[in-house]
Amino acid sequence: MNHRPGARTATTVWKIDHAQGQIRRDQLATEEPLEIRIETRDARQTVAVTMRTPGNDFELAAGFLHGEGVLGSRDDIARISYCVDPAVDVSQQYNIVNVQLRHDAMPDLAPLERHFSITSACGVCGKSSLEALQLRGLPLVQCDVQVPVDVLYRLPETLLAAQGGFQQTGGLHAAALFDATGTLLALREDVGRHNALDKLVGWALLEAKLPLSECVLLVSGRTSYEILQKSLAAGIPIVCAISAPSSLAVDLARDFGITLVGFLRGERCNVYTARERITLPADALVSSVRGN
Amino acid sequence: MNHRPGARTATTVWKIDHAQGQIRRDQLATEEPLEIRIETRDARQTVAVTMRTPGNDFELAAGFLHGEGVLGSRDDIARISYCVDPAVDVSQQYNIVNVQLRHDAMPDLAPLERHFSITSACGVCGKSSLEALQLRGLPLVQCDVQVPVDVLYRLPETLLAAQGGFQQTGGLHAAALFDATGTLLALREDVGRHNALDKLVGWALLEAKLPLSECVLLVSGRTSYEILQKSLAAGIPIVCAISAPSSLAVDLARDFGITLVGFLRGERCNVYTARERITLPADALVSSVRGN
Repeated sequence: MNHRPGARTATTVWKIDHAQGQIRRDQLATEEPLEIRIETRDARQTVAVTMRTPGNDFELAAGFLHGEGVLGSRDDIARISYCVDPAVDVSQQYNIVNVQLRHDAMPDLAPLERHFSITSACGVCGKSSLEALQLRGLPLVQCDVQVPVDVLYRLPETLLAAQGGFQQTGGLHAAALFDATGTLLALREDVGRHNALDKLVGWALLEAKLPLSECVLLVSGRTSYEILQKSLAAGIPIVCAISAPSSLAVDLARDFGITLVGFLRGERCNVYTARERITLPADALVSSVRGN
Repeated sequence: MNHRPGARTATTVWKIDHAQGQIRRDQLATEEPLEIRIETRDARQTVAVTMRTPGNDFELAAGFLHGEGVLGSRDDIARISYCVDPAVDVSQQYNIVNVQLRHDAMPDLAPLERHFSITSACGVCGKSSLEALQLRGLPLVQCDVQVPVDVLYRLPETLLAAQGGFQQTGGLHAAALFDATGTLLALREDVGRHNALDKLVGWALLEAKLPLSECVLLVSGRTSYEILQKSLAAGIPIVCAISAPSSLAVDLARDFGITLVGFLRGERCNVYTARERITLPADALVSSVRGN
């Protein structure tokens, strides 16, 4: 059996258009960890783990090591290969690349520690990222808040109106927190989308508002593993984005009970997971008929 | 004198609209490193350096540490402050945040090493990121390639036509390499924009095409410090983006002689640095008149 992950992952999505929802098949950009190891004659070391879309993995490893000053040209490389270590779980073997150097000595890796680092949580020993989160003991998001889809439709406009920085520079990501009626609670901006969310969660922590179990998060860009991991840690039940989620964002949302909404634009959106928290006008009608 | 950086940075930009260019003032989203340190009664440790937009820095530190499982609530924090260590250069003091914990013991920082790491290159000891690159000995980009602005205008369309993944998933960043006539040489996609560029540079390294001194890079999103740092390492003289650059991207491009183009959309673009490499139809006319 070939465990090699593809660049796209099929999923099922609840596509809502105005007041109507339909279940459809859709494609997500695959996100998986890639562990980059370098080997010399005498030593082997993990130098980076990056969340990437599978494909061109040897190029990714070579380009990353060049950017960090570890490789000068292809003559420095003896061999690049996927991991075939029998100690590694077969499902993770295509998530580990070994770059074998011609040098005898391990290069100076100190500058490389700027952005990336050795990990024992992703890929290594065959543990997946999601397993690592489960091992950390993060609880499921369990809360029965419900939000009408019409409330979601208004969020992007509220975000844009409140977002001062983007309109001046065009260069800032935003993350905003709303209550279940669509009232803006806080908005933070940053060149880094993870930072914008960290600022928002930090605000909540300093204001003693954690966990954010009745809140809706809206991010201006895409949703990735990291955005969902931070949302999970803050206990946010509904995560919305203007743009697409990655496959691992959807997996994490599903496993931990987070409602994940993407492509929230105009009066349309996609709901990928835990759709019981989003209600359509028709649901309200049914409830009221039943209630009478 | 107050060295506290603002969220926006003023710059001068050459705005080109069709065949006309004008120098204008503009605002960039500020990008600066933030070093996060934690302190207990007995120890102090740098736990992360992230490139961020200044503002809400205490929230950013608190939210980051919460997401990584180091902080549970605000009761874990004794005090958050900017660095006032006299050994740190005054220009970097607002780029370092100390989070003083109530715990006696330093928490387990192993899970945190997944994404970030201790550095000796940013902020610490008052060395700025750009100084760190200079210390690494990366050369200036010196090449006299020139590209007509009309060639730039065609690049986004060529990128989009060649970009299979985005159209299916809406979730992939792209980086593409062109020659000076606008011919596509290679295109790579990824959920992470840095990965897309690493794959492209890795392709060039494995094909023995480095340095890329006659090439034009186009990235689908924004340009940050990291995108420029990787472009510099690969020797790329012209970096274009559909979206905005950060302040540090512009600083790095200026210091190292890279032509940086942003907001390349329709028949318009902004040229932030080294504009002698971009020619307008009028320049060709002037040259031909002078030549006669």
